[in-house]
Amino acid sequence: MKKYKSMSDEEQQAELKLQNSRYEVFKSKNLSYDMTRGKPGADQLDISMALLNDNLIGNGKDANGNDCRNYGLVDGIPEARKLFGDILDVKPEQVIVSGNSSLNIMYDTIVRCLLFGAGPDLKTWASQGRIKFICPAPGYDRHFAICEQLGIDMITVELKEDGPDMDVVEKLVSEDSSIKGLWSIPKYSNPTGIVYSDKVVERLATMKTAANDFRIFWDDAYSVHFLNNEPAKLRSILKACEDAGNPDRPFVFTSTSKITFPGAGISAMAASKKCIEFFGKLINIQTIGPDKLNQLRHVRFLKDYNGIIEHMKKHAAILKPKFDAVLSILNKELTGLDIAVWSNPEGGYFINIDTIDNCATKIVKMSKNCGLLLTPAGATFPYKKDPKDTNIRIAPTFPPLNQLGEAIEIMCICIKIVSLESLLSIE
Amino acid sequence: MKKYKSMSDEEQQAELKLQNSRYEVFKSKNLSYDMTRGKPGADQLDISMALLNDNLIGNGKDANGNDCRNYGLVDGIPEARKLFGDILDVKPEQVIVSGNSSLNIMYDTIVRCLLFGAGPDLKTWASQGRIKFICPAPGYDRHFAICEQLGIDMITVELKEDGPDMDVVEKLVSEDSSIKGLWSIPKYSNPTGIVYSDKVVERLATMKTAANDFRIFWDDAYSVHFLNNEPAKLRSILKACEDAGNPDRPFVFTSTSKITFPGAGISAMAASKKCIEFFGKLINIQTIGPDKLNQLRHVRFLKDYNGIIEHMKKHAAILKPKFDAVLSILNKELTGLDIAVWSNPEGGYFINIDTIDNCATKIVKMSKNCGLLLTPAGATFPYKKDPKDTNIRIAPTFPPLNQLGEAIEIMCICIKIVSLESLLSIE
Repeated sequence: MKKYKSMSDEEQQAELKLQNSRYEVFKSKNLSYDMTRGKPGADQLDISMALLNDNLIGNGKDANGNDCRNYGLVDGIPEARKLFGDILDVKPEQVIVSGNSSLNIMYDTIVRCLLFGAGPDLKTWASQGRIKFICPAPGYDRHFAICEQLGIDMITVELKEDGPDMDVVEKLVSEDSSIKGLWSIPKYSNPTGIVYSDKVVERLATMKTAANDFRIFWDDAYSVHFLNNEPAKLRSILKACEDAGNPDRPFVFTSTSKITFPGAGISAMAASKKCIEFFGKLINIQTIGPDKLNQLRHVRFLKDYNGIIEHMKKHAAILKPKFDAVLSILNKELTGLDIAVWSNPEGGYFINIDTIDNCATKIVKMSKNCGLLLTPAGATFPYKKDPKDTNIRIAPTFPPLNQLGEAIEIMCICIKIVSLESLLSIE
Repeated sequence: MKKYKSMSDEEQQAELKLQNSRYEVFKSKNLSYDMTRGKPGADQLDISMALLNDNLIGNGKDANGNDCRNYGLVDGIPEARKLFGDILDVKPEQVIVSGNSSLNIMYDTIVRCLLFGAGPDLKTWASQGRIKFICPAPGYDRHFAICEQLGIDMITVELKEDGPDMDVVEKLVSEDSSIKGLWSIPKYSNPTGIVYSDKVVERLATMKTAANDFRIFWDDAYSVHFLNNEPAKLRSILKACEDAGNPDRPFVFTSTSKITFPGAGISAMAASKKCIEFFGKLINIQTIGPDKLNQLRHVRFLKDYNGIIEHMKKHAAILKPKFDAVLSILNKELTGLDIAVWSNPEGGYFINIDTIDNCATKIVKMSKNCGLLLTPAGATFPYKKDPKDTNIRIAPTFPPLNQLGEAIEIMCICIKIVSLESLLSIE
């Protein structure tokens, strides 16, 4: 296919007419597709139904004989701390296992930093005036929403193929002591699917920061969420920071939300022993303990790290065909037109598309008018402002496979129409 | 038995010798009893094991067809909101159902008031300098610990037989706009077991407050935790405040911690529709939703309000003999000596004892030396300071019935010894 911008006006007009007629056909079908969020499909949830088997609980005692039905164990049960320690390659005593939401732990951790400081003997963030977070983008809208709600200013930094633009990050943090944090999804990043390189991890760990209470929020949400063969290798930020003499710098988060049930999983935070003890004491006033029966259930269902990998292969078997279906249509519809580039991720929950400038908002709106809900344009950037208005996040996991083809075809048609209108300067 | 203080010095000396010899007998047995916390016993937890039956979950869909295994429903599933609405006599839309800890909701609610205000269009508490809470005492140590951690000053007010001393409360809140909150456990209060009278509820609802953002933290932890026949009647603070034109004043909290499993129950907050919507929006950034499978499990296990009452009768059948055993020994050992007064609660988790002045700390220490752990003296007061050092909280629920007799006998002996030493001015 010829590049759109190499076409004559007449060719562009003809192509626009063709795509508009395709659009009208779909529109007349009154379709309803939702690809807004990275939710597992019902078939993926079915994989974990044995998690609910009451035999897993037995008498409710953990490895140390504690009755998980009763109060206590604010840091989580020992076998759950070990399991997450294995996933995150860190000692169990550096892990706190909590309730069903790692987002909740991240939010609460930032609140704790605001009210009590980012570790023992540090000033509270709230006492230091306006503070800032570095937000590699495109990124996760809910990270940015936390900053917005808590009054933390966001600095957008480009997320490249191997992680954030480190030249920019290093310069920023070395010069500005009001920069207290950096968001990151280091593996199978939401939405671009990239994995941080060893070099980027190294630079994050070793860089000089003007603030002595700067923290990396390392949201390892897709740690074991591979599509092919095995999880990508990611250098341990905890070890790298320890080696660099900055052991308290990283706060690591993960959960079983997309391993078992998003609504009923368990979550964890890992950090230096010093910070974990500091936060553990604070949490001990906030709650008497997490849901330990659900922790017990999860450990007995997932067993160990290898058990998780085997379990994740079942997810991959469902997800790979969905990702392939999306990619195949993107290839078929858009290859050679020079109006979009897209990712081909090895894991995670998203396919990322970048269109030509100033088109994403119109494409999402046009898709919606045809019954296809996409993540709102801009959502993947701080303050919901995509500076070039090019980024579209595709979440292919929730719709059934047999609906994906039609949904992505609609999106591609909209990309074509909006691109052509842009080239033809049609408002 | 003769009152201790009416005895001659010689009689007191003889009695002291007798009690000391009893103490030594127990001490030589190397006992180990823990009555520090209001934890259900294992036999109580066994009542709810059918909660774990995976048949309760079925396909995981709630009343509206939402898949509870997946993300969403930050305010809780509709049937759980209704169930707690029935317990608290309030509409489901005034209820948010959360995770396993109502303490966690209380803590987070105070943090929200600090950072975002106690409702829409109000100044944040944090922006108003030092703020204060009224703390009726004796009360719940974990309420006071939250205030201490969050830097909220505490004003101790006497908790009487029908609630806080309202003459004092009314005067305080009318004069001091920095008083933003009042803690309360209105039914079967921890530790004294009292129930707030209708008149006290009325006065709390109607009193004039200098602060326009004053809130009552109504911890209805023992709402259905009766020992005899049926729950005590408690006037609805939500309705009373609504009638008084102060609908946003009360924040009500409860949970199933002592209905099903303390470690794995569900919890709820109720307030005016306006405040619930305000907090719901804030929570929506903190988390994607609570553990909805556990909510579904609970609703299907407990069924409805009547189901809960029937279920609570099973707890009462286990707890009543324990409370009776404690009371019977207190009566036998201490009646007529004029050295202690104690409660005879109709529900809840505690029996409260007040000794003669300046004895509680010594009694708790002496009990510990004999293998009996009691709640630390002072724990039931703000800053852990019992001004008269007389209050001891007995938590009879956790030890098995056959151990209670010995444990309470030890405590009574310690009360006698310390009282006699006090009368004899022995240090």
